Amino acid sequence: MTDIIEIRSPADFHVHLRQGELSKVVTPHVKQGGFKLAYVMPNLKPPITTTDQALAYKKELESIDQDVEYLMTLYLSPDLTPAEIVKAKQNGIVGVKSYPRGVTTNSDGGIESYEAYYPIFEQMEEEGMVLNLHGEVPSDAATNTCVLNAEATFLPHLAKLHARFPRLRIVLEHATTRAAVEAVETLGDTVACTITAHHLAITVDDWAGQSFNFCKPVAKFPDDRQALRDIILEGHPRFFLGSDSAPHPAHAKSTATPTDPCAAGVYTSPILLPLVAHLLESFGALHRLEDFVSNNGRRFYDRPASLDATPVVLKRVKGAIESQWPFGDDSSVVPFWAGKEIGWKIEPVSCI
Amino acid sequence: MTDIIEIRSPADFHVHLRQGELSKVVTPHVKQGGFKLAYVMPNLKPPITTTDQALAYKKELESIDQDVEYLMTLYLSPDLTPAEIVKAKQNGIVGVKSYPRGVTTNSDGGIESYEAYYPIFEQMEEEGMVLNLHGEVPSDAATNTCVLNAEATFLPHLAKLHARFPRLRIVLEHATTRAAVEAVETLGDTVACTITAHHLAITVDDWAGQSFNFCKPVAKFPDDRQALRDIILEGHPRFFLGSDSAPHPAHAKSTATPTDPCAAGVYTSPILLPLVAHLLESFGALHRLEDFVSNNGRRFYDRPASLDATPVVLKRVKGAIESQWPFGDDSSVVPFWAGKEIGWKIEPVSCI
Repeated sequence: MTDIIEIRSPADFHVHLRQGELSKVVTPHVKQGGFKLAYVMPNLKPPITTTDQALAYKKELESIDQDVEYLMTLYLSPDLTPAEIVKAKQNGIVGVKSYPRGVTTNSDGGIESYEAYYPIFEQMEEEGMVLNLHGEVPSDAATNTCVLNAEATFLPHLAKLHARFPRLRIVLEHATTRAAVEAVETLGDTVACTITAHHLAITVDDWAGQSFNFCKPVAKFPDDRQALRDIILEGHPRFFLGSDSAPHPAHAKSTATPTDPCAAGVYTSPILLPLVAHLLESFGALHRLEDFVSNNGRRFYDRPASLDATPVVLKRVKGAIESQWPFGDDSSVVPFWAGKEIGWKIEPVSCI
Repeated sequence: MTDIIEIRSPADFHVHLRQGELSKVVTPHVKQGGFKLAYVMPNLKPPITTTDQALAYKKELESIDQDVEYLMTLYLSPDLTPAEIVKAKQNGIVGVKSYPRGVTTNSDGGIESYEAYYPIFEQMEEEGMVLNLHGEVPSDAATNTCVLNAEATFLPHLAKLHARFPRLRIVLEHATTRAAVEAVETLGDTVACTITAHHLAITVDDWAGQSFNFCKPVAKFPDDRQALRDIILEGHPRFFLGSDSAPHPAHAKSTATPTDPCAAGVYTSPILLPLVAHLLESFGALHRLEDFVSNNGRRFYDRPASLDATPVVLKRVKGAIESQWPFGDDSSVVPFWAGKEIGWKIEPVSCI
């Protein structure tokens, strides 16, 4: 039985680092969770729609913790132009994130149809930028669309975009269904897929009445979870970790009123690498850990690990996940599986 | 356009009146919500498993509000005997409620297999008692069973019971799926089905992150809701109202912690008849109101409305649903759609 694992340059290819005071709490958690690279989502208020905004945001994040490499993204919106794509690429922006309108946190300005963005995608394909898709369609009772089939219903749009832009690298973010896994498998090498830690753990039963497990996309059936686990166990190179770690103040998570639902998002950053190790081991995929949290994503994004990087060391030690981190004067951020015991810890660098 | 509706003897064929202080708050709400009859669920702590307990509970309810007719039920458990069924019938107990183990509030003592209860069911068939089924199987990841397909997976058990006991009156309680509606339609006249008010209103999207809309069975897809609406619109005589109104203190509904989910249950008693009128009108079924809330259920249970009963009068008046009712020193019970406007009100008797 393995008791020590060394992972070279863990990279989280989907994370929310927020802004303001919350950002100061959660940004250092990337490193604390064992990660060297954060692929940063642009759904702030207001959303990050320009290169200048993205660079300013990157500077803010670096001022909080300079030890992490932040890969920046823009929010797909009508404000975006092909010229801005060229500028973004020149300034090191890596991707553009598409949110369907209204399906998750700060997605009110999201897109309704992709055709209008074809000139943007053409320029992105040309420049080698990555398109990150929140792959859900908005709910619509008239077509029997709800949070449960929103992802499956989106998949034809993914296939269509890939057919139209075969050289454009596309990532289907935070897949939750067998249908999504199978769709990505059948598409070409320019299409990849992120999987979160929490979707490897939970199903619909876990967020029914349990707001701390509520996120978008919602966790689905046990068989869907099995498909996510199986594709990692198989070692498929186009599936990799994107935590979608999405902190909210605890009161926004714990308290629903009859008129306001709780915030959507599960927070995993500060415990991410031990949690993923624990989960992969639970379904016999611990040997895939480095591929899943580093190699596969870095290959797709063409961000190879530095050969002289000190590996992160995981040690088999049982311990409970922290119950919360303070935020502001009277709130906190609560991680996924707060208080629950997992089987791995990050070994402090000084002890190596 | 109808502005006044008279409903003879509304009967709620599935309601939770709780015990202790909570019972004192919610029992009078049956009448306040326009209902003359309450078919009372036995899932107290401890559950009502004997005739004597049921009669004592009935006396308690009558001491709180004597104007309502309480039809009592027993909780199906290994404690129940055929002799107790005979005694129950002699003492006016109407039905026996079956809860699968662990699927909802106070169901820890629920059943795991029906075969062991066949002698009970034979006696019930003989005596003319009604079997009320919470029609869900427990979740099991190994068989891909979760809260979303727990009802559909239960339906073969219903068909099997009906085939084995064709004269036993069985009610599939609080149906939430097209599959359940279609299953009950195909079965014989001794099988009926209750539908709640809230399942005519909400789908899975409404309880995702919104704990006040969380109940068991959970609301399903829009197409499932449509099937519930359609069978009422059609006027099928074996489908009728059972509100499954299930009050909890507000803090148990509003607050989840990482280790405790919120309580399952939606509370509709105090606004039930206006709410059902509002909902039925929303899908063009207002003309079915009396059948749905009185005639169909009373016919199935052989409890005809008294011919000289004063009808309950609904008037078309817009008004907001109360936001809460006080409970204890520092809590409350919060109704479904709290604060939302509906289109009907009960006319006070003195104004008729």
